[in-house]
Amino acid sequence: MAGRRSVAVALDTRRRILSVAADMASVEGLEGLTVGRLATALEMSKAGVIGHFGSKLELQLATLDHAAEVFRTEVWSPAAPQQEGLPRLVAICGAWMEYAGRPAFPGGCFLAAASFEFDSRPGPVRDALITYLRRWHGTLVREISVAVSAGDLPETTNAERLASALEAVAARVTPTRELYGDPHAAAHAEELMLAMLGRQGLGDVPVLVP
Amino acid sequence: MAGRRSVAVALDTRRRILSVAADMASVEGLEGLTVGRLATALEMSKAGVIGHFGSKLELQLATLDHAAEVFRTEVWSPAAPQQEGLPRLVAICGAWMEYAGRPAFPGGCFLAAASFEFDSRPGPVRDALITYLRRWHGTLVREISVAVSAGDLPETTNAERLASALEAVAARVTPTRELYGDPHAAAHAEELMLAMLGRQGLGDVPVLVP
Repeated sequence: MAGRRSVAVALDTRRRILSVAADMASVEGLEGLTVGRLATALEMSKAGVIGHFGSKLELQLATLDHAAEVFRTEVWSPAAPQQEGLPRLVAICGAWMEYAGRPAFPGGCFLAAASFEFDSRPGPVRDALITYLRRWHGTLVREISVAVSAGDLPETTNAERLASALEAVAARVTPTRELYGDPHAAAHAEELMLAMLGRQGLGDVPVLVP
Repeated sequence: MAGRRSVAVALDTRRRILSVAADMASVEGLEGLTVGRLATALEMSKAGVIGHFGSKLELQLATLDHAAEVFRTEVWSPAAPQQEGLPRLVAICGAWMEYAGRPAFPGGCFLAAASFEFDSRPGPVRDALITYLRRWHGTLVREISVAVSAGDLPETTNAERLASALEAVAARVTPTRELYGDPHAAAHAEELMLAMLGRQGLGDVPVLVP
């Protein structure tokens, strides 16, 4: 029993470390994450923090996994029960912009910021990031393709490019809010995304049918 | 004469330092810029590098100024001779995507990356960045408004939001190329931007007229 309890405590501590690490990294970047500052924020020893991960690289990778898990829980899970295709895409946009607008991390969308931080830095963190981003891109492409098959989007829709355009609009929410001081950045982005999907009575969107 | 010559040499050295600093910062971020690594790359002493700026903060600000100057030279200057309004907007999109696609810095568009790095980091670098970004945003809004007045864009165009949408698409070029491995990211982004401006025979763009 004692053994099982201490595993549970260790998992709890690990989760608590990752939550604080993701908050810090959303502001300072994953490269800026230091075991020392993390230990101070958690009122733990540096050895106590690193003991859960083994190295700074493992800590970075675990923080990224944690952020991807938060994204999945907050953006994918609320949309998953919807019918696949357009209904699910609309639900995804709503959940995505709610997540970006709240925001879930003090520094804004974790994966968007990491995309810029690691786009030119080869290594395991970039590789893991690419896996997550491609998976999400693939999800969007798949839902768009279903919507096209169902006749809910024009036959000529380029699913790859519509998915990229949705990602571009989503990624811009935090800089727009933080740098231009626009408190409605997420709501405006959601309107734009829905319009791209031909909702809101705006009809087809020729711009996305190259 | 000797005095004048040494001022010229100093300015030359300063410019050479800033060029290397901007290249490094485009990959590592402005926070990641260290005088030590810069000195190594330039084969100078650390004192020699810092002597031109006085502090790391001044070096960061000067690097940002340099990157903004490159942006102005490569994106604004080729478009400025065009007639204001839609012709100039089309020229801006062409120059902008040529600059983003080349790319001018090894880590991709400097200002886009800095937007994510500094959106949650208060201080003089963020303040200077905001000044540059707002100026560019204001330029786009002004040109869009002229295009609307000239009847080249629909009367109902929301200039602020069309400008933000163009910025979102532009900012996404580097991550799309580097993380998804899409070599046509800049060309596709330019097509999307032109379509947003109603070019390419695609007619008005309802998506941007909320």
